[in-house]
Amino acid sequence: MKLLIIGSGAAGSTAAQFARKTDRQAEITVLGNESYSEYSKCGLPYAISGVIASFDDLIEFSRSWFQRFKINLELETEAYDVDPEAKTVKFISLRDGTKKEHHYDVLIIATGASSWVPEIEGAFLDGGRLKQGILTLRTMDDAKQIHEHIQKGKRAMIIGSGLIGMEMAEALSLRGMETYVRLRTHVLTGMVDEDMATLVQKSAVARGIHFIPRVTASKIGGAEKVEYVVLKNLDTGEESEYPTDLVVISAGSKPQVELAKKAKCQLGSTGGIVIDKRCETSIKDIYAAGDCTEYPDFVTGKSTLIGLGSIGVRQGRVAGANAVGGKEEMPRGILNNRTTELFGLEISAVGPTIRELKNAGIEPVVGKFNGSTLPDYFPGKKAIAVKIMANPEDGRIIAAQIVGEEDVHQRINVFATAVFESMTLEDFMKLETCYAPPAAPTLDCMTLAADAALMRWKRR
Amino acid sequence: MKLLIIGSGAAGSTAAQFARKTDRQAEITVLGNESYSEYSKCGLPYAISGVIASFDDLIEFSRSWFQRFKINLELETEAYDVDPEAKTVKFISLRDGTKKEHHYDVLIIATGASSWVPEIEGAFLDGGRLKQGILTLRTMDDAKQIHEHIQKGKRAMIIGSGLIGMEMAEALSLRGMETYVRLRTHVLTGMVDEDMATLVQKSAVARGIHFIPRVTASKIGGAEKVEYVVLKNLDTGEESEYPTDLVVISAGSKPQVELAKKAKCQLGSTGGIVIDKRCETSIKDIYAAGDCTEYPDFVTGKSTLIGLGSIGVRQGRVAGANAVGGKEEMPRGILNNRTTELFGLEISAVGPTIRELKNAGIEPVVGKFNGSTLPDYFPGKKAIAVKIMANPEDGRIIAAQIVGEEDVHQRINVFATAVFESMTLEDFMKLETCYAPPAAPTLDCMTLAADAALMRWKRR
Repeated sequence: MKLLIIGSGAAGSTAAQFARKTDRQAEITVLGNESYSEYSKCGLPYAISGVIASFDDLIEFSRSWFQRFKINLELETEAYDVDPEAKTVKFISLRDGTKKEHHYDVLIIATGASSWVPEIEGAFLDGGRLKQGILTLRTMDDAKQIHEHIQKGKRAMIIGSGLIGMEMAEALSLRGMETYVRLRTHVLTGMVDEDMATLVQKSAVARGIHFIPRVTASKIGGAEKVEYVVLKNLDTGEESEYPTDLVVISAGSKPQVELAKKAKCQLGSTGGIVIDKRCETSIKDIYAAGDCTEYPDFVTGKSTLIGLGSIGVRQGRVAGANAVGGKEEMPRGILNNRTTELFGLEISAVGPTIRELKNAGIEPVVGKFNGSTLPDYFPGKKAIAVKIMANPEDGRIIAAQIVGEEDVHQRINVFATAVFESMTLEDFMKLETCYAPPAAPTLDCMTLAADAALMRWKRR
Repeated sequence: MKLLIIGSGAAGSTAAQFARKTDRQAEITVLGNESYSEYSKCGLPYAISGVIASFDDLIEFSRSWFQRFKINLELETEAYDVDPEAKTVKFISLRDGTKKEHHYDVLIIATGASSWVPEIEGAFLDGGRLKQGILTLRTMDDAKQIHEHIQKGKRAMIIGSGLIGMEMAEALSLRGMETYVRLRTHVLTGMVDEDMATLVQKSAVARGIHFIPRVTASKIGGAEKVEYVVLKNLDTGEESEYPTDLVVISAGSKPQVELAKKAKCQLGSTGGIVIDKRCETSIKDIYAAGDCTEYPDFVTGKSTLIGLGSIGVRQGRVAGANAVGGKEEMPRGILNNRTTELFGLEISAVGPTIRELKNAGIEPVVGKFNGSTLPDYFPGKKAIAVKIMANPEDGRIIAAQIVGEEDVHQRINVFATAVFESMTLEDFMKLETCYAPPAAPTLDCMTLAADAALMRWKRR
């Protein structure tokens, strides 16, 4: 049994790990196009900020790990063609240009995604490269470049205010740059609703981040090197010039599906590779996992691009085991259970945002509770804002968002379990939460948010 | 509608609160036998230790709260008789001895529990009072007495190593007393299994607590005032004398059911009042809530005495609403979802301990994982030990225990949700947990504990 895995990121490496756990004899090869062994992409902002001491610390599956488990790892290698009939993949060494062909019995495509750069006048030099000082963040090399460009006291502009954009804003600010963020509507649009995002924006402003609201980037000025960004007001059309020393574009990503296309794997409406519960593509013996795939949303059923490491490793696990004869399955949909920490706040969410729910035709019942992590009488308690969304038809919990200074992350896992189990608000109200004065109140903020939603639901 | 509530603790006061929410017209009276308005009993150890600045801070439902919601509150009043036919309760003022009778349409018994003191030679003076320097902790007055007895640098002995015993050991130690704990088997026997308790004991020892293992208290010496405790080794029978200045007996509690007995309410095998899902007793129009009641365990179905404030307030809510015509229900069983913090550790558990499971004829499949709260590469990660128990017949999760330095409390709520929803290990493995480098690893310690259990379950 020859298993070939294209992509040495979290999904690909986890696939190799679980293929090896499932079949001790299989010949397993992993091809990666970077020069590093598997590392935490999500950790990059923290190595840039200095919270993590060294980029090397981010390596999770080291070269010696691959050796120990007798998995062939070929780095700086680009797979550029595949023949699903002959079951061969052609690849080229990015070091010396030599080309090779590899036969497989089973193929796993885990090619990930790449940064998407919008068409902004002046962003690109002739030849298609980005102007000096304009950077994106996806890979270790991207991060190292940003790291080198940081100059204390100078200005940085973030184009994009999603999760990575905000993590970069915090990282650059921590490293002493005057950091500006161009804002269309609110921060973290894909993650939380505007009311919750506002809490994050307030904290960011308190820590020195400058937001430029209701604008889009229309031009990046400078000859070889970035000198300023022109921002255009979305309401008035007025343009303003902002001098800057560094631009980080964090405007989204697109799945890397060139190889999947050559294999004639079906792509979905999002542009990602379509996979089934077993992580198999439309082509027999070709599996896929991670950011190059799409999967149904658990609540709306709509195809969604994978963008979370937590899902990538779960798909990698399923794909890797099944590729060598195991029997693993993904659930029927993904929850997009997501979290981060920014500007002293923990921000977590599960399920679709209100906008996504409305786009799917669901007008959710919403309950909100602004509470405290501990009983009122206990010192050191922190504010916490909890929002819960339920399906108006049956009262089932379909989404939740939490923002607070502490104890947020694991609370979202409670709601994720509730969504996954299709719990109703009424059932959730009956759930005992743990209580102790230094730990949580007798009725948790989650329970009281559910109570608020339940009262609305009963009145509907 | 005249509602009478006997007991002004958490269950009784919450019952009054939700009765008022449900019926704005009802005449509601609450009788309490202490002189304080409702306060947090669980907060008492923290007022003794000084973590909470003042005993007054512990008041939750103040006298003015009762006034605002037009609820009659009569304190220092003992209800001593009830006639369920005539629907009258007789009570006596503990201030001046005057007796009165109160007619009710609906009665809620929320008389709580009292400290149980084992028969130890020399513990009691003639007349039945405890010898000076021997104290129990249940009420505000108990706590104030202990507070007055604390003398820095002197010795205290805790008889009982359960939750309150250990919280008292920490409190006395924080106040500078040399603190000894007599240990029969391990600490927190009702809360966690021995392997998890050992972690807590290690931390306690590191913070200066002295454990005297495998002993029982056989005598308390001293004339009017405690001078020493004689501890008898459970294996050898050997007795040793330990000089001490203060003894705190924390050996358990017994439900206060005298009034319920007079009303001929059915008592259960535990001695607690039997109630149904609506919190009604066997006698029509008499409800009960809190530590004076018993309820089926969610997993084993066995009757269990209520001992958690989180359950008491939930029962209070149900009893209060239903007493005035509302429609609330408790779930079919209680999870005993419990938590605390001791000696720098967070300790949480849900469902029966292994001993309790075995007593109920369930030989659980156990999975353990000693992990970390954050990814390996992230600074500040803390050790966390997770244990999960599943029913061998169907792989459903029935209990869990977690001990760690942080992020424990809310993780137990995740497992509580899983137990409540009868999730299987296999389902739990499919649950997405949230991930971000400063928040949690891609595969959470909970997932990996479930994985360990699942592998055992498949091999069984």
